[in-house]
Amino acid sequence: MMIVMKEEASQEQIDSVVRRVESVGAHAHVSEGELLTVIGAIGDRERIANLDLQGADGVDRVVPITKPYKLASSQFKHGVPTVVEVDGRKIGGGHFSLMAGPCTVESREQLLSTAEAVKQGGGSMLRGGAYKPRTSPYSFQGLGGEGLRLLREAKEETGLPIVTELMDARDVEPVLEVADVIQVGARNMQNYSLLAEIGRSGRAVLIKRGLAATLEELLMAAEYVLKEGNEDVILCERGIRTFETATRFTLDIMAIPVLRQLSHLPVVVDPSHAAGRRDLVLPLSLAAAAAGADGIIVEVHHDPEAAICDGPQAVPADDFGAYVEQVQRVAATVGNELSAL
Amino acid sequence: MMIVMKEEASQEQIDSVVRRVESVGAHAHVSEGELLTVIGAIGDRERIANLDLQGADGVDRVVPITKPYKLASSQFKHGVPTVVEVDGRKIGGGHFSLMAGPCTVESREQLLSTAEAVKQGGGSMLRGGAYKPRTSPYSFQGLGGEGLRLLREAKEETGLPIVTELMDARDVEPVLEVADVIQVGARNMQNYSLLAEIGRSGRAVLIKRGLAATLEELLMAAEYVLKEGNEDVILCERGIRTFETATRFTLDIMAIPVLRQLSHLPVVVDPSHAAGRRDLVLPLSLAAAAAGADGIIVEVHHDPEAAICDGPQAVPADDFGAYVEQVQRVAATVGNELSAL
Amino acid sequence: MMIVMKEEASQEQIDSVVRRVESVGAHAHVSEGELLTVIGAIGDRERIANLDLQGADGVDRVVPITKPYKLASSQFKHGVPTVVEVDGRKIGGGHFSLMAGPCTVESREQLLSTAEAVKQGGGSMLRGGAYKPRTSPYSFQGLGGEGLRLLREAKEETGLPIVTELMDARDVEPVLEVADVIQVGARNMQNYSLLAEIGRSGRAVLIKRGLAATLEELLMAAEYVLKEGNEDVILCERGIRTFETATRFTLDIMAIPVLRQLSHLPVVVDPSHAAGRRDLVLPLSLAAAAAGADGIIVEVHHDPEAAICDGPQAVPADDFGAYVEQVQRVAATVGNELSAL
Amino acid sequence: MMIVMKEEASQEQIDSVVRRVESVGAHAHVSEGELLTVIGAIGDRERIANLDLQGADGVDRVVPITKPYKLASSQFKHGVPTVVEVDGRKIGGGHFSLMAGPCTVESREQLLSTAEAVKQGGGSMLRGGAYKPRTSPYSFQGLGGEGLRLLREAKEETGLPIVTELMDARDVEPVLEVADVIQVGARNMQNYSLLAEIGRSGRAVLIKRGLAATLEELLMAAEYVLKEGNEDVILCERGIRTFETATRFTLDIMAIPVLRQLSHLPVVVDPSHAAGRRDLVLPLSLAAAAAGADGIIVEVHHDPEAAICDGPQAVPADDFGAYVEQVQRVAATVGNELSAL
Repeated sequence: MMIVMKEEASQEQIDSVVRRVESVGAHAHVSEGELLTVIGAIGDRERIANLDLQGADGVDRVVPITKPYKLASSQFKHGVPTVVEVDGRKIGGGHFSLMAGPCTVESREQLLSTAEAVKQGGGSMLRGGAYKPRTSPYSFQGLGGEGLRLLREAKEETGLPIVTELMDARDVEPVLEVADVIQVGARNMQNYSLLAEIGRSGRAVLIKRGLAATLEELLMAAEYVLKEGNEDVILCERGIRTFETATRFTLDIMAIPVLRQLSHLPVVVDPSHAAGRRDLVLPLSLAAAAAGADGIIVEVHHDPEAAICDGPQAVPADDFGAYVEQVQRVAATVGNELSAL
Repeated sequence: MMIVMKEEASQEQIDSVVRRVESVGAHAHVSEGELLTVIGAIGDRERIANLDLQGADGVDRVVPITKPYKLASSQFKHGVPTVVEVDGRKIGGGHFSLMAGPCTVESREQLLSTAEAVKQGGGSMLRGGAYKPRTSPYSFQGLGGEGLRLLREAKEETGLPIVTELMDARDVEPVLEVADVIQVGARNMQNYSLLAEIGRSGRAVLIKRGLAATLEELLMAAEYVLKEGNEDVILCERGIRTFETATRFTLDIMAIPVLRQLSHLPVVVDPSHAAGRRDLVLPLSLAAAAAGADGIIVEVHHDPEAAICDGPQAVPADDFGAYVEQVQRVAATVGNELSAL
Repeated sequence: MMIVMKEEASQEQIDSVVRRVESVGAHAHVSEGELLTVIGAIGDRERIANLDLQGADGVDRVVPITKPYKLASSQFKHGVPTVVEVDGRKIGGGHFSLMAGPCTVESREQLLSTAEAVKQGGGSMLRGGAYKPRTSPYSFQGLGGEGLRLLREAKEETGLPIVTELMDARDVEPVLEVADVIQVGARNMQNYSLLAEIGRSGRAVLIKRGLAATLEELLMAAEYVLKEGNEDVILCERGIRTFETATRFTLDIMAIPVLRQLSHLPVVVDPSHAAGRRDLVLPLSLAAAAAGADGIIVEVHHDPEAAICDGPQAVPADDFGAYVEQVQRVAATVGNELSAL
Repeated sequence: MMIVMKEEASQEQIDSVVRRVESVGAHAHVSEGELLTVIGAIGDRERIANLDLQGADGVDRVVPITKPYKLASSQFKHGVPTVVEVDGRKIGGGHFSLMAGPCTVESREQLLSTAEAVKQGGGSMLRGGAYKPRTSPYSFQGLGGEGLRLLREAKEETGLPIVTELMDARDVEPVLEVADVIQVGARNMQNYSLLAEIGRSGRAVLIKRGLAATLEELLMAAEYVLKEGNEDVILCERGIRTFETATRFTLDIMAIPVLRQLSHLPVVVDPSHAAGRRDLVLPLSLAAAAAGADGIIVEVHHDPEAAICDGPQAVPADDFGAYVEQVQRVAATVGNELSAL
């Protein structure tokens, strides 16, 4: 931690900062420059951060030097990427995973026919929501327990592992009975009780980046899970909120190489929610594969026109095979291979 | 709902949209212009919204005409502002509420001495967190149950109503035993299970706007509570995330007059979290009062230097009386009166 | 400048950074921590900045310690605020300036009747554009030279100093014949040729913050003018671009106290362009005055319904007197006095 | 234009809007819904837009139905993409252009050796700045006329067409003597005098998107050039400003497919300025090629460590051949072919 004092800071203010740094057992290294003084605080990062020196009298800025995450950092694994294995399918370290399926489980017929198309088309896992966070309390909120039951049936029929969302820690038990990968939605990325609960469950988890979460905050969310001893964490970029209104969100394609540099965890992209429009899904998927993503989580629907939720952004099941082929070809140019059984 | 078709949309695509609008029992009014066709969909808003026509073939844009919230809208109360009453203190409709106290309950001495200063200085309620959402799993997470116990003691000693945060629906019972106003933090603004739970509890609630939530989304969060029959909802602007890094967040001062026009619910401002620096708290508080806010929720600490959390943004307890006086004077110029017992 | 090396940086990479820092005559102070190495570069800021070490091999981040602006900084004037004097009207240091008038000069009658209302209502200066930057090439682009002529007439009739925009350095001469304060629009804030030209002219200038400019960049724009020896620079906050679409822009009210702390230059607010709606102009003006702004630049129109440009955001001339009175009352509560002749 | 009235709008307010729409020769189509009234204004878009009804009394929102740009729209060319031809090299319609070279012309040796590497590596054009917009007035501002002279020499030696920036309309003549493609920088994207001047020059132009410009505004900037009869316009995405600070800007990869759908103009990407770090340049370039970009403008330097400006983001000249090969391979997977002589 580097504490940059204001040019007009008094000696008393400098001394006060030094005293506070030392009060938590850290060492304060004072550099007096021509214009201003900089104090390096060396010691336990959290204890120093808890001093909240930013904004203290005479302090201009506090610049963190070390990263706030440990278990999620590249250094922790000495630069070796983590390969998450789910029921025999691998993600990360050269293994590219295609998680596909409907936004929401709507009916038996919808789920089973889409699942069959995902399997035939070469998808790695089946995605589908039983619990859906909706902006409006008047919107369809998912089938709940009945949705979970249908997902289990689809898994039995196709052998595809299941990715499904957990919204409320009180539902963790039934979700664990079905989910091979638990999804944490963007709006819950900083629901710390939920993250810790999932950490304790030991089940693989896919954490979607919040609409306005920095990459550092995404890694801190992962840290909440890793801290409980659960190492199977997948990061997901799904578009951030910016001033641009031509698209629903702005897909942050840079997140892929940046996260891969900062962390050992696999990174996947959700092009469907970022775009909200089917015609953008293919170019964004190819861009993600070219940028080195470890996978894609994409919406597929056997009859998008009739979808209750997010139909227009789903790839029609009939086109899924051709879609997979194109993504696979680009992924191969950067050395990633599609993971399927 | 107004569906604007693309200039190149085919007749078939137009017909398909009309068919889908009619399939949910709504009426489709087709206007063919020189350049393009616009389809007005008249009927149940939610059923039409669930069609998710945005992104459907041939559709350029879907423009919602009516607002998605009902119970939170000004129209619902015919333009009459809601006055929330908490243990005799009023907020809204000319009543200005000053909720003050430490960010986090840290110790008996800290809480009681700060509470006493809040009471002496003319504060309306006491704020303080027992459960704290922290970006880092390594940071202090609050005293939990012990913090709630201390808040109860502070209430008994000072008579000030308590504002405290609920983070996890599983803690709703102990929090209800102490909280006069339940606070929903910015990171939980779209935790819909939590909102519905609070709605059912019937207790007054203060909802903080998410870092990247639109005002419409904030009103939808309120709608989740109102829909359960709980009418005591207070909205809180606490700064949004923008490109500017000179300040921790950007306080959206426009949110005050805009929310007051869109909704009947009272609007308060949190200058402490927006700024993260004590020297900005007073100017932002005065700005909020001048813009017509119904109240302020501000951090006060009896010894900011020693605070475990967010000390540098707290107003020192010794200065609180002078602070209240200045805010009061500005609030009075726009016709609002400080609410205290 | 503080250069934070990556944890995995090699000794060679550290040496290379040191060599490059020393190559521009600066001193490199190396601190080896447990986890990583930090190199302090002490010497001429610009020469070190020109090394562009951010992104160099082994470098994690470059953290500027000193501010990039000098003449615009508070320190340069030892904390004493600059008072800009325009034809006897003062701005800054306790003097509050109300610059009012139409967005665009449209006709003799429009300008003269509005100018008269501004004078009667207690305005400090008359604003009005002869050259208008418009997003569309098909929109009205201002009356040009004829607009300048009308502004001169309005000045002769009312005695009010004139604030008007310069868009193109090739128009500097005719504008200088009329303008008491040259306005630089938000879209031209980083038009460095224009800024330098105005700096050389010696005329007072009001620089509007760009839609996505940081406060530091705004101060750097001021520095371009100050560097040419022109000290009469006024900063203007007019709303920034964020994700929020409920309002045209998001007025950054924090910019006022932050700029006043960083710089000695006066700070004014443009509530009209930020909001784009008349009903928000008064609350935003009061908020600006309460937050300590040194003035307001506001649109007034004698017949807003008939305005060619931006009518709906203009305060009707008939209401201007009452508007001034309310703003004045709030400005007084923070010790600022309206500046008029 | 669709004018949505407020629910509480009076008949008088509705009539006033109708009158104003009709006053510019347009037709007003009034639809009274159950909750509110919507007025469709059919007629000349600009004249209706000039009414500025947004914010008028009783008006909730004005929703533009038709696009504000005409000449830049896909419809104008009936969906056929424009192929810009520069000295035999094509951009657009399947032709992929690699514009490469140093950020700034620094010296004869630097430019000529980099130019040779660009030619050998398979680049389509040579980029290099003689005039540089710099945030700080104390930074190196480019070699000016001498830089232009060196660019001409490089062109003569290598036969590569030149892309160089014009910052000030007063420099248009010397720049026209050298530039095959005039570059408009992000900070000048809304410098309308400059755009019109370039439009009149007839020379091909590459317009960089402003840091906070919407795609619609970028197309409006193109419209300023096209309106003067100049059809050779290339659009350039170079990163936008968002809340994320892990990268210098956020590359908006969605801009590629969206612009290609809205407009017939070719779209290129600048990965160097978006990232500001060399290690991100390759993944972003591959992502751009995969998303269907018509080209890339990238920084190459024969000795990045010694670069005066933006060295760390430049691809070393020695690696350029391998870089071109990888980009070419991905471009080929989406049917684009590298354009070179």
